[in-house]
Amino acid sequence: MIARLAVIGVGLIGGSLARALRGAGAVDEVVGCGRSAANLERALELGVIDRFAQDPAQAVQDADLVFIAVPLGAMRDTFAAIRGQLRDDAVVTDGGSVKGSVVADAHAVFGEVPARLVPGHPIAGAERSGVEASDPTLYRDRRVILTPLPETDPAALDRVTRMWHKCGAQVATMDVTHHDQVLAATSHLPHMLAFGLVDALARLREHDEIFRYAAGGFRDFTRIASSDPVMWRDICIANREPLGEVLRRFGAEMTDLAATIRRGDGDRLLKIFRRAKAARDGYVDGVGVGAEE
Amino acid sequence: MIARLAVIGVGLIGGSLARALRGAGAVDEVVGCGRSAANLERALELGVIDRFAQDPAQAVQDADLVFIAVPLGAMRDTFAAIRGQLRDDAVVTDGGSVKGSVVADAHAVFGEVPARLVPGHPIAGAERSGVEASDPTLYRDRRVILTPLPETDPAALDRVTRMWHKCGAQVATMDVTHHDQVLAATSHLPHMLAFGLVDALARLREHDEIFRYAAGGFRDFTRIASSDPVMWRDICIANREPLGEVLRRFGAEMTDLAATIRRGDGDRLLKIFRRAKAARDGYVDGVGVGAEE
Repeated sequence: MIARLAVIGVGLIGGSLARALRGAGAVDEVVGCGRSAANLERALELGVIDRFAQDPAQAVQDADLVFIAVPLGAMRDTFAAIRGQLRDDAVVTDGGSVKGSVVADAHAVFGEVPARLVPGHPIAGAERSGVEASDPTLYRDRRVILTPLPETDPAALDRVTRMWHKCGAQVATMDVTHHDQVLAATSHLPHMLAFGLVDALARLREHDEIFRYAAGGFRDFTRIASSDPVMWRDICIANREPLGEVLRRFGAEMTDLAATIRRGDGDRLLKIFRRAKAARDGYVDGVGVGAEE
Repeated sequence: MIARLAVIGVGLIGGSLARALRGAGAVDEVVGCGRSAANLERALELGVIDRFAQDPAQAVQDADLVFIAVPLGAMRDTFAAIRGQLRDDAVVTDGGSVKGSVVADAHAVFGEVPARLVPGHPIAGAERSGVEASDPTLYRDRRVILTPLPETDPAALDRVTRMWHKCGAQVATMDVTHHDQVLAATSHLPHMLAFGLVDALARLREHDEIFRYAAGGFRDFTRIASSDPVMWRDICIANREPLGEVLRRFGAEMTDLAATIRRGDGDRLLKIFRRAKAARDGYVDGVGVGAEE
């Protein structure tokens, strides 16, 4: 049970956590914090938070659990703002999509990674953003990856794990570096391809016509290109090495595929497409989370 | 009004046309044709066709309209099978995703492109295939591109245009080469990226884990990788030059994006992502066909 939850960044991710915990009867009081007073007023109206403070130092006063859901580029300043303001037994966790940079930011601010800071990443979220988009069921049956360090307090890890279970999520732990590599491949790379494709087409002279004749598959494929540009800039910068590497390798694969197509090697194309279809169908029917619509 | 429609290839595309025309009361009799007797029996049971013949030469007897919906790789053999079997005033059209290869196949078989052959491409369809997936509303509010040649009979073009209007589709005409370039960018390239991405991830040692931590965006992004491998092999071979070129250029863009990320150029990333988001949002709200769910 959480007596006072401080949510720094009351958007889709932070707002949904507050609503889920409230729905589960797992929190007494929620204090919101953010840069936009209008957004916090809206969160208050929607019943997502009980009160708010715009200064993180104030927001975390007497909180026993602090959830930081700010863009990765604002993580270091947020740590700096709450340093020395936390209750001794307060547990802090976050929702950042890259864990190496969060750990580095903590190190830079605190001189170490505090034992009660549990880096985390809920694999949920969407193109939508803001408290209006927040949803108490966002994390239900979704996976949350926690990346504790050797110095992490096991009791703090357990507390954060239980918090996510209350939201209906499945919790796994993973090494920080491994997390960032896996997410570079499964999330960051697809976003780069979607942003890159739409941008490339938009820059063509006949882009109106191009988009006019795009079919349903294109709409699904490019949905993630509607995601928040600032958030994605931050993710790219924060995960630049693993993402740069996976993107470079993918670019080389596409160059190779282009050559295979040009020389008309149907057997090789068929092999690639069959392997991909089997993996996609298996992923959806098998280990994939959530149901296909 | 169509007295006798011959549909060669009674799958998603051919079956949906037959059902739509029947639903609109625009056809008297539908004759199906295909390699699989079981599929044709099923089409008969479902009421998609009235009778069938496995030999295209027989199926087109006395038909006033012939719709060819076979994979691109089977187009030439289909033309050869119906040569000399058509009624003098029969109009022939097709649903192939690449038009240059269809025109070349016609030329190879007939020695010219017959005046009453109207190459066409309905921009619809999906990962699903087979007559079971056919749907009388598949073409409603969808676009159909017809690519008539200078030698095409205007009356035949008009007949095919009216046929598609009866299905609720919007019909546009386009030059063959231009069609193939536009589709390479909007349809064939995204399919290559989705197939390529899923295949690249499936070949990784930790692919089970990779797919396990993929989020909803990944599911949407890779849906088209469930498409029929044979159909896509044929499309790649048929459209190899435009597709090879657009894929090569995209590969180079990704290599450039990888370098931008690695050097941490946030301003440039933000510019790209903002341009893409604006185009994607504008496409969906604006000129895009169909409604976003």
